[in-house]
Amino acid sequence: MKSDIEIAQSAKMEPIYKVAERLGLTDEDIDLYGKYKCKISLDVLKKKQDRKDGKLILVTAINPTAAGEGKSTVTVGLGQALCRMGKNAVIALREPSLGPVFGVKGGAAGGGYAQVVPMEDINLHFTGDMHAITAANNLLSAAVDNHIHQGNALKIDSRRIIFRRVMDMNDRALRNIVVGMGGKVNGFLREDGFMITVASEVMAILCLSKDLMDLKERMGNILIAYNLDGKPVFCKDLKVQGAMALLMKDAIKPNLVQTLENTPAIIHGGPFANIAHGCNSLLATKTALKLGDYVVTEAGFGADLGAEKFFDIKCRYGELKPECVVIVATVRALKLHGGVLKNELSIPNVDALAKGIENLEKQIENIKKYNVTPVVAINRFITDSEEELKFIEDYCNKLGVEVALTEVWAKGGEGGLALGEKVLKILENKENNFKVLYDEKLSIKEKLGVIAREIYGADGVNFTKDAEKQIKELEAIELDKLPICVAKTQYSLSDNQSLLGRPKGFNITVREVRVSNGAGFIVALTGDIMVMPGLPKVPAAERMDILEDGTIVGLF
Amino acid sequence: MKSDIEIAQSAKMEPIYKVAERLGLTDEDIDLYGKYKCKISLDVLKKKQDRKDGKLILVTAINPTAAGEGKSTVTVGLGQALCRMGKNAVIALREPSLGPVFGVKGGAAGGGYAQVVPMEDINLHFTGDMHAITAANNLLSAAVDNHIHQGNALKIDSRRIIFRRVMDMNDRALRNIVVGMGGKVNGFLREDGFMITVASEVMAILCLSKDLMDLKERMGNILIAYNLDGKPVFCKDLKVQGAMALLMKDAIKPNLVQTLENTPAIIHGGPFANIAHGCNSLLATKTALKLGDYVVTEAGFGADLGAEKFFDIKCRYGELKPECVVIVATVRALKLHGGVLKNELSIPNVDALAKGIENLEKQIENIKKYNVTPVVAINRFITDSEEELKFIEDYCNKLGVEVALTEVWAKGGEGGLALGEKVLKILENKENNFKVLYDEKLSIKEKLGVIAREIYGADGVNFTKDAEKQIKELEAIELDKLPICVAKTQYSLSDNQSLLGRPKGFNITVREVRVSNGAGFIVALTGDIMVMPGLPKVPAAERMDILEDGTIVGLF
Repeated sequence: MKSDIEIAQSAKMEPIYKVAERLGLTDEDIDLYGKYKCKISLDVLKKKQDRKDGKLILVTAINPTAAGEGKSTVTVGLGQALCRMGKNAVIALREPSLGPVFGVKGGAAGGGYAQVVPMEDINLHFTGDMHAITAANNLLSAAVDNHIHQGNALKIDSRRIIFRRVMDMNDRALRNIVVGMGGKVNGFLREDGFMITVASEVMAILCLSKDLMDLKERMGNILIAYNLDGKPVFCKDLKVQGAMALLMKDAIKPNLVQTLENTPAIIHGGPFANIAHGCNSLLATKTALKLGDYVVTEAGFGADLGAEKFFDIKCRYGELKPECVVIVATVRALKLHGGVLKNELSIPNVDALAKGIENLEKQIENIKKYNVTPVVAINRFITDSEEELKFIEDYCNKLGVEVALTEVWAKGGEGGLALGEKVLKILENKENNFKVLYDEKLSIKEKLGVIAREIYGADGVNFTKDAEKQIKELEAIELDKLPICVAKTQYSLSDNQSLLGRPKGFNITVREVRVSNGAGFIVALTGDIMVMPGLPKVPAAERMDILEDGTIVGLF
Repeated sequence: MKSDIEIAQSAKMEPIYKVAERLGLTDEDIDLYGKYKCKISLDVLKKKQDRKDGKLILVTAINPTAAGEGKSTVTVGLGQALCRMGKNAVIALREPSLGPVFGVKGGAAGGGYAQVVPMEDINLHFTGDMHAITAANNLLSAAVDNHIHQGNALKIDSRRIIFRRVMDMNDRALRNIVVGMGGKVNGFLREDGFMITVASEVMAILCLSKDLMDLKERMGNILIAYNLDGKPVFCKDLKVQGAMALLMKDAIKPNLVQTLENTPAIIHGGPFANIAHGCNSLLATKTALKLGDYVVTEAGFGADLGAEKFFDIKCRYGELKPECVVIVATVRALKLHGGVLKNELSIPNVDALAKGIENLEKQIENIKKYNVTPVVAINRFITDSEEELKFIEDYCNKLGVEVALTEVWAKGGEGGLALGEKVLKILENKENNFKVLYDEKLSIKEKLGVIAREIYGADGVNFTKDAEKQIKELEAIELDKLPICVAKTQYSLSDNQSLLGRPKGFNITVREVRVSNGAGFIVALTGDIMVMPGLPKVPAAERMDILEDGTIVGLF
């Protein structure tokens, strides 16, 4: 069996200008980055403003498990399938971060015969977006410390600087640091820390901006610190939002690549799915909708986190109207939700499945609350028994929900035809009445209450003393009327990662509340969220190499 | 009068593929990065191995002063002039770092009508080389701390880690830091610090590598630390040189842009001129020599540092044979060397000039020690008197050295025609007997003695106790048989920046000796060398902006 990188390397890529041509893009509309990547000009949105948008399909999943669900793979495979069915489909995905590539994962861009290519480039520097974000972020950080060093006219309280430096690397030693050592010429001593670039508010801003001027304004609105009088200090107070926007002038443009089957794929932006909203950029999605008749996109983690934020943050800001949601599930993962141990997943077990499937049931219910029609994609594994597959099918039928088996990992688009048919059927028959879950003008506590009860199935929300104080602070400075971005374990509907399936009778506890005022959401943290991963004992980097003939090894 | 960025923005750029075509490059040979930048495949060197190399012209200068000499501007202008004279000339330059762009300088790519374009892109992310270097460097740093965290099998002494993290930013708060705070899960506490990316050994390696395999080997040879037994630990002990090379697979390819007059310019690599050797990559120069009949390149700082390292490090490793050296001088700078105060430079003063010109005399003598023929370029300023200009001309004539006035800032290539003629005359008439100054097999002290006496005009070299100890250490581990890279003030031939002109009767003092074993040189520091600049009170970043119509302001 071929590895993902071997499959990717044997792909017959089209020159990307040809893929662009098929989408109706001219030479003027694109900037090549080598032969197989390009950026799409934002002018395309204006040029095509009268064209009707394509239909938007979101791929999400049950709560993820250690068994793996293959959400990105299904996203790519569904796009390939729709193209095989003669449709003008475009895929919109997040771009990967270097950190995980060198850490555990070793790269990611779908899998098997449902991958985006050139996989090596997408996983390494791609078109430099991550680096631009890193630079813009760290320019602001340098400006903060420089401002204090040069007299601190804004009276920034160095104990209350919220904005952190970033690096696109897994580097635990940078989580908690002291900067400014070495006396007067080297600045003032203070505690600081690095996050991984994708955790940066700058990334979230890139992903929610409508255009470069909107991005600049959002950069200016980043809350960076409080001053010694307890008043908020914003990026614009340091006057570097213009330079930051300048650094982002190319990064803001969506990137076009292709799948193994030459399906166009727009890969742009990749914010964390916990302290940020976890989906590709709004501009990428909007561009895809102007170029394709069908746009397949995904959101990070399971539907309770990923789809909820996709709807309530991204769709709200972008006025997007998704028309169909694919919920990816696997027999193995549902059995894990039903209590089966990881090393017993290959043994057929319909009883466990019957218990674990309640997780899927809840995600289906949740999607319907947004007036969007779900379809279940069972990502087939070789160990799945016919009885188990039939059980899921019957269960979905009983709920009145479409369901399809997918085998895109092994068969590419061919393996996604059944799913493609179900999706098209939904898109043809249903009216689009998408609505968000809550009014962002509600109080922070009210908004959190709605999400916890409606989406997680919780009885209510507890707030720690810190969180109570922070909410009052945000209310006092009137930065509380924004949608909520919950940072919660992805493994459970609750905030306790060991409660699998469909837990009941629980409260979630909000421990910290922050505002990402530039991005435009309030982050509610329900536990310790890791914003700077570490490398494992044997980092993937040790396996990686490039040989004399240019062959790349170890990227998967 | 137009600003540099206004001139740059009104340039009529050719699509870069056309510039490449004129150099005999095919579509296969280049990778476009937008319409006006491309990377040149390293295969071009093999394809054209039978073509005779062009002639190599180095542009250097007297010891720089606060008055400014315009070395890069003359380099660009001379290239433009040679093209105007019907010659196939290619320029090879260093690429700028983001740090200074946002700090004091606000960007740099020549000046006036002798600039390389697209200036905005070259000054911002360009083709991502700096970011690739930053990532490769910081991957190694993360691997070092991770190795210690995961059990420290190599027994790395965390007090003796030499290799530092980097960021392409002016950020003084990162000069001296403590990493690994926060207890067990966050690694071991230790002192560390960030350098600016261009100060990284990874940058020096990029600039001295012959190909990607050579680069990988050099990465592996970086001395990163000593272990608890006092033995050296190299990058290859952590097995990440393959991943580092992989990160550099595109960065190693030279970048092609153009001047305002469409002269091809290869801009690639930009190591510090103090703790590194300060010239563009060897691969850029070699590629330029295969594509052009005349290659104009430059080296950082004055000839005592820049040209010396260009010859003794870069030419030694690359087996380059420069045939002509342009020494840039200005009336104003020579008067500063003669003792005139900065605010009196506009007043004609031949006496001061007669004193200060000894600096030029010494640089001329130095160039001749390499068997290369110098030509003096007087970069004309409006305040220069005819008498002063005549004085320099007569002085050079007496020394038997060609001299030409240049006005490339105001007139572009037209203003460099006189210099171009002198250069061509030298190239036509002289034999090429280039030789390096010393045998790298000599001891460290012997090599430093030769450089100090022959080039700086010192009586000898003093070594601090630390330096003595470090030399013995390097001798013990047999890493001492490498060329020397002196880190010294650029303002004086001596190591005391206030000794202008041609100081005599001095010793230089070496305070610290390090090895850049991957790059392949020994750094001898004669004072405190700033490897992480800070931002000024009002950073250039505050003036920068990008407007709704895409206009960029404040980059100069």
